[in-house]
Formats: sequence, C-alpha cells, structure tokens
Amino acid sequence: MPSEQGSLGITETKYFTFAEGTDPLLLDCGRTLGPVTLAYETYGELSDARDNAVLICHALSGDAHAAGFNADEDKPGWWDVMIGPGKGFDTDKYFVICANIIGGCKGSTGPSSINPLTGWPYGLSFPFVTIKDMVNAQKRLIEHLGIEKLLCVAGGSMGGMQALQWTVSYPKMVRLVIPIASTGRLSPQAIAFDEVGRAAIMSDPDWRGGDYYEKSVPQRGLSIARMIGHITYLSDKSMHQKFSRNLQDKAEYGYDFVTDFQVESYLHYKGDSFVKRFDANSYLYITKAMDYFDIAQSFGSLTEAFSKVKAKFLVISFSSDWLFPSYQSKEIVRALRQNDIDAIYTEIESDYGHDAFLLETDALASLISNFLKHGRKKV
Amino acid sequence: MPSEQGSLGITETKYFTFAEGTDPLLLDCGRTLGPVTLAYETYGELSDARDNAVLICHALSGDAHAAGFNADEDKPGWWDVMIGPGKGFDTDKYFVICANIIGGCKGSTGPSSINPLTGWPYGLSFPFVTIKDMVNAQKRLIEHLGIEKLLCVAGGSMGGMQALQWTVSYPKMVRLVIPIASTGRLSPQAIAFDEVGRAAIMSDPDWRGGDYYEKSVPQRGLSIARMIGHITYLSDKSMHQKFSRNLQDKAEYGYDFVTDFQVESYLHYKGDSFVKRFDANSYLYITKAMDYFDIAQSFGSLTEAFSKVKAKFLVISFSSDWLFPSYQSKEIVRALRQNDIDAIYTEIESDYGHDAFLLETDALASLISNFLKHGRKKV
Repeated sequence: MPSEQGSLGITETKYFTFAEGTDPLLLDCGRTLGPVTLAYETYGELSDARDNAVLICHALSGDAHAAGFNADEDKPGWWDVMIGPGKGFDTDKYFVICANIIGGCKGSTGPSSINPLTGWPYGLSFPFVTIKDMVNAQKRLIEHLGIEKLLCVAGGSMGGMQALQWTVSYPKMVRLVIPIASTGRLSPQAIAFDEVGRAAIMSDPDWRGGDYYEKSVPQRGLSIARMIGHITYLSDKSMHQKFSRNLQDKAEYGYDFVTDFQVESYLHYKGDSFVKRFDANSYLYITKAMDYFDIAQSFGSLTEAFSKVKAKFLVISFSSDWLFPSYQSKEIVRALRQNDIDAIYTEIESDYGHDAFLLETDALASLISNFLKHGRKKV
Repeated sequence: MPSEQGSLGITETKYFTFAEGTDPLLLDCGRTLGPVTLAYETYGELSDARDNAVLICHALSGDAHAAGFNADEDKPGWWDVMIGPGKGFDTDKYFVICANIIGGCKGSTGPSSINPLTGWPYGLSFPFVTIKDMVNAQKRLIEHLGIEKLLCVAGGSMGGMQALQWTVSYPKMVRLVIPIASTGRLSPQAIAFDEVGRAAIMSDPDWRGGDYYEKSVPQRGLSIARMIGHITYLSDKSMHQKFSRNLQDKAEYGYDFVTDFQVESYLHYKGDSFVKRFDANSYLYITKAMDYFDIAQSFGSLTEAFSKVKAKFLVISFSSDWLFPSYQSKEIVRALRQNDIDAIYTEIESDYGHDAFLLETDALASLISNFLKHGRKKV
C-alpha cells in the first residue's frame, strides 16, 4: 500500500563550484573547463551509511529544481509528481539529488556564463560538452556531497542518457540505473530534428553568431526550434485527442495566416514561453551533446560498452514514443543481458508519446518504488 | 505480360488561361480569382470516344511536368517512372493529363503572379485557395480539353486530396479514383509541421510580409520549412538505412556547429536546392490549403461526403508512412464501403515512409495498370 503522498514544501537550489584554478574538467572535445558551477537540489536525508542516494538527471530543458516549491514560485519542480514523501522516489527513504548540466542556462556553467578570462559571456567560445562531460561534472558534485556510491541514477530522455553514461563511466559508483524513454544513441531522425532547430536559431539575425547577450535574443529562431521539439514530444494520437482539428477562438477558417487551429496556438504558446526561460546558445550546445551521444561508439558495440557495468537496470519505454521508440530501449536491454546484467524491461502503454515520462506518473511510481526497494535490499 | 517500357521523349508544358474578364473562379474564401492560368502537360492520345483520359494531380512541390523531358532539361518529370509507354499509366492506352495547381509557382496563377489590377506580384494579396478551388480550376481545363468524363483521377499526398475532392465535387465526371498515401483530412500533427514551416518563413526578415519579389527572397525560412518537410517524408527506418549515424566528410565529431552527420548534410542540401525552385509565398498558401482540407467538413461525416460518389476506388497507403498513415486511408475505405462504393484497399509494405509514393514504382505500377484495365472495361 503506498504511503500518503506529500509535498516537499519549500526547496532550494544550491550551487557547487569546482575547478577554480586547479583540476579543471577535461572535456571530450579536448578543451578544459573551469571554474565550473553546478546547480543542484537535494531532498530527504542521506542515511548514516550513505547508501540511499538517488541521482535524478534531467532532460533537455529541465533544471535542478525537480521537486517542491522554490521560494516565491507557485509552480512545483518539473518532476514533483515523482519526488517527495511517499512518492515514486520516496524522500522518506531516499536522499534524492537532482543535478543540473554543464552547457545549460539554469545556474550551471554554460555559454551564457561569464568567461572569467574575458569578463564577457562565453557565447560560442564555450567549449563543446558531451553527455559524458556532463556526467563527469556531476561526479565531482556527488563526491563533494560525500557519497561514494549512488543507490540509483535515474532520468528520462536526455536524463536517461546521463544515467547510462554514469554506469559506463563509473561502474563502481552506481548500484541501480533507471533509463526512461531513452536511448543508447540518438537516431538519425532525432538528429535531423535537432539540426533543423539549430538551423532556425542560427538563421535568426538576432543570434549574431551567438553574441547576443545584453542585446535582443534570437526569439524567433528559438521559438521555432521549440515548436519542432514539441511536435516530437507528443504522439499523433495524443494530438488527435488533445486538439483534433478544433479551431482556436473562431467558428470557421480565417483564410489568413493568423492561427486557425488549436494545435497551432499550442505550439506558438510553447515556443513563446520557452524563449523567456531558455538560452538559445544552450539549446545549440545541449542538442549537439545529444546528437553526439552514442554510448557504444568508443567500445565498438553496445554489448562491449556495458561489459564493465555492475548495476541492475530498470529500463522503461512508452508505446507511443516515436522520438525514443521502444526498440531503442530494447537494444539496451539486449546488450545488458548479453553481459548477464540484471535488467527489467517494461514498455508502458501510453498515448502521450515521449512526454509520457512526465505524465504516466502512476505506472512509473509503482515500477520505480518497487525496483528501488528490492534493489536496495539485494545488493 | 507488361509491355516494354519506354520514355515519352520530349514533352512540353502548356498553359490554359480562363476567366479573363468574365466568369472568374469563385473561391471558398468568398473572393474571386481571374484571369487564371493553369500549367499542364498531356501524354498519349485522347481516344475518339474521349473515354481514356487520366488526370494526375501532384503533391505540394510538384508541377505539371510529370513525365518525359522538357527541352534543355536532363532530368525527366517527377513521375516519369510511372507515366509513359508500357508504364503504370500506360500512354499507349491512356491520355494522361497532369495539371498544376492554382496558388503554386510553376506556371499557374499564384502569389508570385502579376496581379493585373496593380501590375505587381500578388504577394499576400493573393486570395486563399483550397483543394476544392484547385479542383474547380482543373475542371475548367478538363472541359477546355473537350473531356466530359475522366476515366481516372490519381495522385499521391496532396494529389490524393485533389483526387478525392474531384469525385466529391464532380461525381459524374470521374469513373475511377486512385488516392495514394493520402487522407480525407489533414491530421493535427501534419498541421503542426506545416505551421512550424510557415513560422520559419514568416520569421525570416527577408520575407517582408510577403512582399519580397525582386528583392532577396526568404531563403533561410523556406529552407528550414523544407528541411522539416523532408524529415516527415522519410521514415525512422529509412533514415537508419540511408544515413545511420554516419559522419559527413570527417572521421570524427567536429565539435563545432558545422555539419557533422550525413543526415544533416542531406537536409541542408534539400533545403538549399528547394529555395532555388520554389516560391516561399506559394509554400505558405499551399500548406494552408492542405491544412484546411477536411473533405467531410461540410457534410458532417466522411460517409456522408461520399454519398453521391459514383466512382470506383483504388486506395493505396504505405506501411511506414507516418505523415499520412494507413489508418487515414482505411478511414476513407470504410466510409466508401458504407456507401456501397467499390473500393480496393492496399497497404504496400515499404520502409520509405511518405516518399514511398514516388519510389515503390513496381508495386504501384502493377496495382494501377490492373485497376485501370479492369475499371475501363467494367464501366
């Protein structure tokens, strides 16, 4: 029987800065980054044995604020439905950490951060970062928090990529892994959508080669990139259910280029609101990191990539997700099993498309809470 | 046994102008259009009984030049594989007409045409046109050619919409209908992709509210719109087969925002070449016509829409087409059968996605040539 679910109340984003002068982060691209700040939040209490830490990794547009309410905000964190007392990630039992990513624009070091060498925002002088680099930065945070071994790393979409990378990069530091609606390598179709989004941003005259800070930002380009993204997060069926061919605020076709259909209005709203909260250069860098993600690449095969992995896996996909389709999760599971790694695979029936990882809360909470409970005991 | 297939050799685009002064085309939007020019080509000979005319309707970016070679061109028409002596549409047997659409930019009256009232290109003063309006214009051409009854109307994608509209608007003029990879109404997902493409064009400063003729054209916006389109024309699987994650002209990741992957290079090439041959305003008008297409709308239901239809149908879809998925063709077939209309339905197994209607030539040719042969006899 699930415990009664509660809210975490007020939560606070914290900041950890490392590589100030010494020991910079060596990146996949060959360059170094330092100082590096990571935004993060924590919920619940770390056990005396330090064996109950769960790291949550977020998706493209997420941030460290996964649960509870930040002061002066009336919207809870992006995965509040899953994190809290009695919830899927039960903060009465687990010490939950949500770490932001480098390259982003939500408090961690990224292209909109001030380059200490110049006193100006990095812009395109920011080095390229990969999913592996993001994980390497998070590892410094986990060590800083005094945790030698994570009970679990979990995440949806790009968060799932980070979870996979964690267990491959640091096999001894991870006991359980939960990649949700994710993939071992981005598909050419997803790369294609990313590239069109980037082309929209970089075609916007306001982008100015990435040097737009303190000027007008490339709103139109970023909005278009986000509109494309949102189509890929929904499914054909969910769009039929949500919008059908319903008109927006009119009884008949307008015969003009103003919004006719509700689906158009939805996309414009999503695009317009995104430009208020996200940095266009971060969008470029993060989508590129996703495009570059192919965990098998330096190993020759996915099976080989997982050969040193020690963790147990719960791999979850959604039936209508066409951006990270189930066959990609199945590829991961097949490669894990070829290494005799304990892997549970579940495809959740859902019409919500890729967005299902944020919406199918009941199914996820039940799967995840059981997996954590049994996984914690067994190891 | 199929006859030996041959080329039509040199073919020529012709132009028919009507509504010069009197009898303008009354459009769905309530406005009138005239004079109206339609580009078209014909192949083969009209029989003495005038009973062998097949009208081919084209898709979004198509034109009247469907087969053979226009003088000074080394590329054949867009459906040359299907139209010619011994081919699917056998010009030894049928008089094949391919008619362009109003709203386009391939020789027919559209937003880039000169508005006779001003002496300047219409731009956004061009009236909105629908699929029904396009068909009404084509009807004038068919009458001009002395044809009272078409043996067949056929087309893929938006061409299939026109074919459906023909038989609903002019049930007595059509004996056989072949809608391929088409739909009775555009889905919200397809509307969404269209709207993002339009937003890209209209966000381009070079678009200038549609008044860019004789100035620089909105290349960047139109190119982005076309890139989005091309993703929807392929399938996830065909992109894996065609591009996988192969890099373009480099051995490893570039760690820059220049093209890394072949799929990116393909899309940019497609986008860049499209802007040389297509008008951005036509892209706006034609996608809007597709978005507005819902053949059931004024009837209340799809079944009711087909209640006066006399034709026999061959409805074809492709298994991997996710832009006009098979379920949409099945909806058409169901509604036809509810009216006791003779409808053959075939889903062709193909990995090519929506593009399959241009690529699965053997399967299409065999289905279509048989359907035409038997259909001509029976009626």
